[in-house]
Amino acid sequence: MAQSNSKKLDAITSMDEDFAKWYTDIVKKAELIEYSSVKGCMVIRPYGYAIWENIQNIMNTMFKETGHENVYMPMFIPESLLQKEKDHVEGFAPEVAWVTHGGSEKLEERLCVRPTSETLFCEHYKNIVHSYRDLPKLYNQWCSVVRWEKTTRPFLRSREFLWQEGHTIHATAQDAIEETERMLNVYALFCEKYLAMPVIKGMKTESDKFAGAVSTYCIEALMHDGKALQAGTSHYFGDGFAKAFEIEFADKDNKLKNPHQTSWGVSTRLIGGIIMTHGDNNGLVLPPAVAPTQVVIIPIAQHKEGVLEKANEIYEALKVLGVRVKVDDRNEFSPGWKFSEYEMKGVPVRIEIGPKDIENNQCVIATRYNGEKQFVSLDDMLDTVKDLLENKIPQGMFDKALENREKHTYYCESFDEINKALEENGDGFVRAPWCGSEECEDKVKEATGISSRCIPFMQDKMARKCVCCGKDTDKVIYWGKAY
Amino acid sequence: MAQSNSKKLDAITSMDEDFAKWYTDIVKKAELIEYSSVKGCMVIRPYGYAIWENIQNIMNTMFKETGHENVYMPMFIPESLLQKEKDHVEGFAPEVAWVTHGGSEKLEERLCVRPTSETLFCEHYKNIVHSYRDLPKLYNQWCSVVRWEKTTRPFLRSREFLWQEGHTIHATAQDAIEETERMLNVYALFCEKYLAMPVIKGMKTESDKFAGAVSTYCIEALMHDGKALQAGTSHYFGDGFAKAFEIEFADKDNKLKNPHQTSWGVSTRLIGGIIMTHGDNNGLVLPPAVAPTQVVIIPIAQHKEGVLEKANEIYEALKVLGVRVKVDDRNEFSPGWKFSEYEMKGVPVRIEIGPKDIENNQCVIATRYNGEKQFVSLDDMLDTVKDLLENKIPQGMFDKALENREKHTYYCESFDEINKALEENGDGFVRAPWCGSEECEDKVKEATGISSRCIPFMQDKMARKCVCCGKDTDKVIYWGKAY
Repeated sequence: MAQSNSKKLDAITSMDEDFAKWYTDIVKKAELIEYSSVKGCMVIRPYGYAIWENIQNIMNTMFKETGHENVYMPMFIPESLLQKEKDHVEGFAPEVAWVTHGGSEKLEERLCVRPTSETLFCEHYKNIVHSYRDLPKLYNQWCSVVRWEKTTRPFLRSREFLWQEGHTIHATAQDAIEETERMLNVYALFCEKYLAMPVIKGMKTESDKFAGAVSTYCIEALMHDGKALQAGTSHYFGDGFAKAFEIEFADKDNKLKNPHQTSWGVSTRLIGGIIMTHGDNNGLVLPPAVAPTQVVIIPIAQHKEGVLEKANEIYEALKVLGVRVKVDDRNEFSPGWKFSEYEMKGVPVRIEIGPKDIENNQCVIATRYNGEKQFVSLDDMLDTVKDLLENKIPQGMFDKALENREKHTYYCESFDEINKALEENGDGFVRAPWCGSEECEDKVKEATGISSRCIPFMQDKMARKCVCCGKDTDKVIYWGKAY
Repeated sequence: MAQSNSKKLDAITSMDEDFAKWYTDIVKKAELIEYSSVKGCMVIRPYGYAIWENIQNIMNTMFKETGHENVYMPMFIPESLLQKEKDHVEGFAPEVAWVTHGGSEKLEERLCVRPTSETLFCEHYKNIVHSYRDLPKLYNQWCSVVRWEKTTRPFLRSREFLWQEGHTIHATAQDAIEETERMLNVYALFCEKYLAMPVIKGMKTESDKFAGAVSTYCIEALMHDGKALQAGTSHYFGDGFAKAFEIEFADKDNKLKNPHQTSWGVSTRLIGGIIMTHGDNNGLVLPPAVAPTQVVIIPIAQHKEGVLEKANEIYEALKVLGVRVKVDDRNEFSPGWKFSEYEMKGVPVRIEIGPKDIENNQCVIATRYNGEKQFVSLDDMLDTVKDLLENKIPQGMFDKALENREKHTYYCESFDEINKALEENGDGFVRAPWCGSEECEDKVKEATGISSRCIPFMQDKMARKCVCCGKDTDKVIYWGKAY
């Protein structure tokens, strides 16, 4: 295995040297995306898209298990429709793309390319919801949306991105609030179980909630560089949209009422989250559940008798188990070059098999996230790989990410403590008492450069004083710099 | 079962009375689509979208088995990029939607919403294809596209529609031509095996090919009303796009060459094809492979002891087999009402189970496409249903559709024969000798109102005379009215 140290020549920028460059190096060199000539829009390449497909498949199952159905709405919204809900249009109009011409003709009314589809769903619900028997409608849509951002970064903020948007409508406020919470929990479970990404569940402050929502719930994750990533949101709308769009239903008591609505979404941004939660200086590190290739088998001295046969035997055995596995038997690259290649691409497990291994009825199993290598008897290979993919690796990745988050979560009781913590330990989550006023929220932002992330559901209910105004409060909030 | 004749009050328009209205009645009443306030764009409702998801799942497997990978390109194309290939821009520019503003700012260059993505794929291939080792790239994309049509109809012609577009690039012309043919065969196999829709495989005439293509292959199906539906196309581009976009690769002989390209697509139009191939005056008739619900179980006298239990037992047994099955145990509707409901929705198999059936250890199995009902011993129920879904129904539906097509395919040798056949038997395919000239093609259209559909791969190579000019030819072509 002498070749195992011959790294690829074009190593990526180190994370500590330039985090932003490290990030874009990974998205390019792991072949997740390629830039296009449309500013802020990206080509999602097969390897990147396969990660998204795996995310979609798992989530789709979770959505269907919770009773949701997929639909497809038009991608265009007439300007007059967008304007029906006042807060909503104020939030979105400044950042939409406008279609003004169809062929050579000027349109009578401009159409925006959907930045989100609340207005379209409302128009549809008005057509199909008339009685309590029609409720709830639990709809979801997978599509792309457009927001005309000034500054863009692959996966994190782009002018077009892929996402899912759930839109549900219920007879009562309670049903809608339960749905809002249910879907936030689905998101949190998905992130923690399948992406090995610990998240804080909480609520956005008034100033930070979705345009048109009564309340916005969110999950927040901490990235390697100490910045926060909003990984998913779930909004409770009350009956505000229903009133604006005149959606009414005859309830059991025969009275006409406005139904209550929710919406919730996650996007390809999650892929950015995976990169910045798990990646390292050798490249991407993928959680097994969404890795396009879970195991790569690399034959050593593959020209020697029996090596390729044994590699293919292992391949077949893993494939039967449902593992996404490949053998790389290319002649033109050394094993060491291949090691680097699959490290860059974040393949969770590498199996090396050479003549000596075969002699000893063993193979080498290397784990991407922690770099560990072990000799494993070929008799135990299947059990070992299965246990790694299903338990050890996701758990290990989650623990590592959680440890990093804990290390960069600062419990502060004053401005001084906040500034000191950030200065000494770098960016991170600041968990601090807050009186709940927008004024204090603004002042913290001014004084420290960090902004509110969320009011966590997990509160400790201790009597303390707001870091800003000093008023008594038992409420804590997370602050941080955000992507 | 006295209630079985109590049809729903709002029956659909009869096919013979008004075919177009029959069609729109079905798309609305089977809850496939709903109109939106954006002209020519539709809401695809859960039942309609589930059909599309089933189509996607089967096709995706077929695409992956033939080595293709999914990617995602931006939805916008800068005007200058669209203009790079002359024929292509001429074909598409008149029918694209133009984005001119982002937020409140006017864009420096207009962007069109993709009507198809050849230009984007070419731009990407120019970036990633440099050597023969990089070839072929076999990419596919699932997305929505926009074409600013004047006249629109749900699924058949809408301003936005969902589709897949394959885009591949190869080292040699031969490889690209083989790919073009391979994917046409995949489409034909899909339509015939999974949609039970017989298709003619052939080639478009010069005047009818895709903008920018060297040749366009297609599959054509005949609808109930005798009109033809182009159900899928596969294009061979030669190296025209590669030259226009300056895509070059170093071949094995170290010479720089232009690669050869293809593209191929099918869309939600297939759902329109299903409706008009199999539907009847009771509503939709779905092929089992893509039916969201394959079997519906309707308990008769469900308040009687043991009926619901037995219905649920059947449900569980079918579910374990992987059948998409549901029990409709709603109290507020009679069995007869439910029969009509699921006939409208085209559910392939209905199982009725009542107290007398249970006494006799049997159930009634009704088959949607031919209306047949049979008593089946509960011991044979699983085998019977499985055989119906996998063999008898798809085969029966295919045979019925083929019979209809044969009945409406007219073999003609002269203008007179064409006009007579159409007058006596109604619209249909006209299979007739053609010399191959565009002039004759135009004259046939003028004289008979039908246009060329395709030059079929299956030729009989008999010596005959062109129906128009009378020149000797051994070539036949299909003519017809097209959707």
